[in-house]
Amino acid sequence: MKIINTKDTNFKSEFESILARAKSDIKGVSKIVSNIIDEIVESGNEALKSHIEKFDKWTVAKDEDLLISQNDMKKAYENIDENLRNALHTAYDRIKVYHEKQLPKSWIDFEENGTILGQKVTPVDRAGLYIPGGKAAYPSSLLMNAIPALVAGVKEIVVCTPTPNNEVNELLLAACHLCGVSKVYKVGGASAIAAMAYGTQTIQKVDVITGPGNIFVATAKKLVFGEVNIDMIAGPSEIGILADESAKPHYLAIDLLSQAEHDEMASSILITTDEDLANKTSIEVENYLAKLEREAIARKSIEERGVIIVTSNMEESIELMNEIAPEHLEVMTKNPFELLPYIKHAGAIFLGENTPEPIGDYIAGPNHTLPTGGTAKFYSPLNVENFMKKSSIISFSKNAISKLGEPCALLADTEGLTAHAKSVRVRLEDK
Amino acid sequence: MKIINTKDTNFKSEFESILARAKSDIKGVSKIVSNIIDEIVESGNEALKSHIEKFDKWTVAKDEDLLISQNDMKKAYENIDENLRNALHTAYDRIKVYHEKQLPKSWIDFEENGTILGQKVTPVDRAGLYIPGGKAAYPSSLLMNAIPALVAGVKEIVVCTPTPNNEVNELLLAACHLCGVSKVYKVGGASAIAAMAYGTQTIQKVDVITGPGNIFVATAKKLVFGEVNIDMIAGPSEIGILADESAKPHYLAIDLLSQAEHDEMASSILITTDEDLANKTSIEVENYLAKLEREAIARKSIEERGVIIVTSNMEESIELMNEIAPEHLEVMTKNPFELLPYIKHAGAIFLGENTPEPIGDYIAGPNHTLPTGGTAKFYSPLNVENFMKKSSIISFSKNAISKLGEPCALLADTEGLTAHAKSVRVRLEDK
Repeated sequence: MKIINTKDTNFKSEFESILARAKSDIKGVSKIVSNIIDEIVESGNEALKSHIEKFDKWTVAKDEDLLISQNDMKKAYENIDENLRNALHTAYDRIKVYHEKQLPKSWIDFEENGTILGQKVTPVDRAGLYIPGGKAAYPSSLLMNAIPALVAGVKEIVVCTPTPNNEVNELLLAACHLCGVSKVYKVGGASAIAAMAYGTQTIQKVDVITGPGNIFVATAKKLVFGEVNIDMIAGPSEIGILADESAKPHYLAIDLLSQAEHDEMASSILITTDEDLANKTSIEVENYLAKLEREAIARKSIEERGVIIVTSNMEESIELMNEIAPEHLEVMTKNPFELLPYIKHAGAIFLGENTPEPIGDYIAGPNHTLPTGGTAKFYSPLNVENFMKKSSIISFSKNAISKLGEPCALLADTEGLTAHAKSVRVRLEDK
Repeated sequence: MKIINTKDTNFKSEFESILARAKSDIKGVSKIVSNIIDEIVESGNEALKSHIEKFDKWTVAKDEDLLISQNDMKKAYENIDENLRNALHTAYDRIKVYHEKQLPKSWIDFEENGTILGQKVTPVDRAGLYIPGGKAAYPSSLLMNAIPALVAGVKEIVVCTPTPNNEVNELLLAACHLCGVSKVYKVGGASAIAAMAYGTQTIQKVDVITGPGNIFVATAKKLVFGEVNIDMIAGPSEIGILADESAKPHYLAIDLLSQAEHDEMASSILITTDEDLANKTSIEVENYLAKLEREAIARKSIEERGVIIVTSNMEESIELMNEIAPEHLEVMTKNPFELLPYIKHAGAIFLGENTPEPIGDYIAGPNHTLPTGGTAKFYSPLNVENFMKKSSIISFSKNAISKLGEPCALLADTEGLTAHAKSVRVRLEDK
C-alpha cells in the first residue's frame, strides 16, 4: 500500500488527488438519464416495461406484475434462516432506537405582547426508497432507509428495486416485511427514480426519494431534485483512519480492506504519526488481501486509491482529515474521545479499537447512508429529518402589530412593496 | 377576481391548473446555464469579468474591483436614515432570537454494555448567499439568509450580488454590515453561483449556497447541487388564505394583493366556505388594485393566477389547501389555532386577522425564504440547519462487540462482504 509523508516534496499534489478522489461523471450521463426521465413522464408504465425488458431481461405481462405482493414479503420473512432473522431484528431494533432520538419536536413560544411564534414539524406523505438489485442488493440498505421514514411517521413507504431476470432478493423482501413497507416495485435504475418523482399509472408520486445507486441513479436523483426532495448524491464508499502508535496494525489493515472490498473506486486512507505503524499496516494489508474472497476488487481499490499518510503530529493529521472529510472516520488512538472537538467533517466517527466501521454498517444504530467524496463538509447522514419538513407558525396580537407594524411597513416601503406596507397599515388604521 | 366553486363541473381541471402553477422552465435554460458554469470553472475571474461586462454593463479593471470593501459597508450602515436603521435592527434582533431557538444540539447517549452513540452538530466552514440586484435588491433577503448562517456559527459568510452599471444598493450594504458579512462580491446570476460553488482566483469555494434568484440562478443552484449544498429551488411567491365568514374582506383583499405585487407569476388563492365573503373580497381586490403603485404587475398576477375557491365546508377547504401546499398560508377564521393540527403542508402559517403575511416577510422572526409551488410538501423554510451538518458518533466497548459482533458479521456474510465480517471477527478472536 502506498505510503507518503507530509514532508515529501510532491505531497501537495498527492494530497490534491486524494481530495479529488470522487469526481463522478454525472454530466457525462445527464443526457441519457434525462431522456429516460422524459420517457417515463410521457408514457408511464409503457416506458417502465420497455426499460425492464431492455435492462432486466424479462417481460412485464401486465401492470400488476410490477408489484411484489405483501404476501410474498411475509413469506420471505418467514422463510429465512432463524439466526439471520434474529440478526435482522437486532439491527432493526437498534437502528429504530437511535433514529427515535433524532425526532425533532414541534415547538411554540410566547411573548408578553401577545405574539406567538413556533415551528410545526410534519412527516412527508410518501417516501420512495431506491434499493439496488443484483450483486449490490443489500437488505441493510433497506433497513437504513426505511427505518428513518418509519420513525418520522411517513404513512406510505414504497420501494423500487430492479429484479434482473425477474428474480427477487428474498432477504430484501424479508426486510421490507419487517419494516412495514407499503409497496415494492420491480423497477430499477433511472426509470425507477423518474417513476417515483413523477408517478405512473401504477406508481404514485412520492415526496422524497432516498437510497444508494449507480451513476445513473445518482444522476436521476439530481435531475428530479426540486420535483421531489432527495437525500444526497452519493459516490463510492471510503474510510479514513486517524491512528497513533497505540493502534494495532492488523485492525487497521482489515478495516481499510473492509472499505476496499466494496468497490474498485472505494478509497481507504490511513493517517498516522507513526512511520513504523504505517509500514506494519501496509504488510498486514498485503497478508489479508491474499486471503480475501473479493481480493480482485479490494486489491485494485487499495493499489489505485489506497494511501497511508505519515504526519509530524496529531494536529497535522486532524487538519488533513478535516480537509478529506471522509464518509467513515475511525479514530484509533489512546484516548479517541479527546479528539472529538477537533473533528469537523466526517459522516460517521468510530472511536476506539473495538469499533470497526462494519459495526456501523449493520448493527450499531446510526445510519450507514453517509456523505461521500468530501461532502461531509455540508451533508449529514441520512436521518429522520430527511422524511420531515417544517412550517413556521406566526400569530400577532393587536398589541404586537401596533408595536411592530410601523417598522415593518417602513421596510416594505423601502423595498418598493407598497401593498405589503398597506396590508400592515390597514390593520393599524382599524384601531 | 375569478371565483370558482368545488361543485362546478370543471372544478377538477381548474384545480389541476392551480396545482401546476409553478412549473418552471429549468430544463429550457439548463444548456445556457451549464455553459456559463463551465466558463467559470475553466477561466475563473476572466469569465466573471466578461459576464459582468455583458450583463451588468461595466468593466472590471482589476480583480480587487469585484469586492466591496468592509469600509464601504460600514459607511452605508452609518449613512442610512435613522428610522430605517432602527427598523433593520428590530428585524435583525427578532430574526436572530427566532433562529436561535432552532439551534440543534450535539447529543450523546450511553448503554449499560459500554456502547456510546451520539450525533455531533457542526456548522459548515463557509456559506455563500446570493442576493438579487436591481429592482429586486431586498435588504430583508440579506437578513433572512445571513442570520441563520450567523446563528449556526458559520465563520465565513460571503455574498454575491449583481451591480448593474456598477451601482451598489446602499441599504443592502448596510444590512451586510449589520450581519457581519465577511465579503461582498459584485457578481450576479449563474456566474455567481458557479463562482461560489467552484471558486475562482478571488472567490473562495463555499460549502452551502442559499438565496433567491431568477430562473438562471435557480437552474445554476440545481446544477451545482452535490458540489455544494443548496437550500431549495424557489419559484414565484404565493399566498393561500383559509377564511370563514368571520374574516374581513378588505384584509383578505390587500393580503392577496401583497403577494400579487411581487411578480406577474405570483399566485394568490383564497379558499372560503362563504360565497358572500368571496364576492365581497373580489370587489375589494378591484378597489385596492386601482390604487396600487405596482398595479400592472398585481393586476396581471390576480387576473391570470389569482382565484377564490368556494367550498362546502372547512374540511374540504383544508384538504384542498394541503394539496396546494402554499408558501404562505393565512388562516382567517374565528379560532385559527384549532385548525393547526389539520394543516399539513405550508411554508409559513399566519394565524388570525392581525397577522398579515408581510409581517413574516420583515419583522416577525421566522424566515421569509420558504418553499414555493407545492414544495412545502417536502421542503422546510430556510433555517439554521441549512448551514450545519451532523456526524454520527459510535463507540463500542469490548463487552458491546462481544455481544453484537456475531449478528453483525452474520449480516455482512449474507451480503457477501467477508472483509466486513472479518474486521468484526478479528476483534472477537482477540479476546
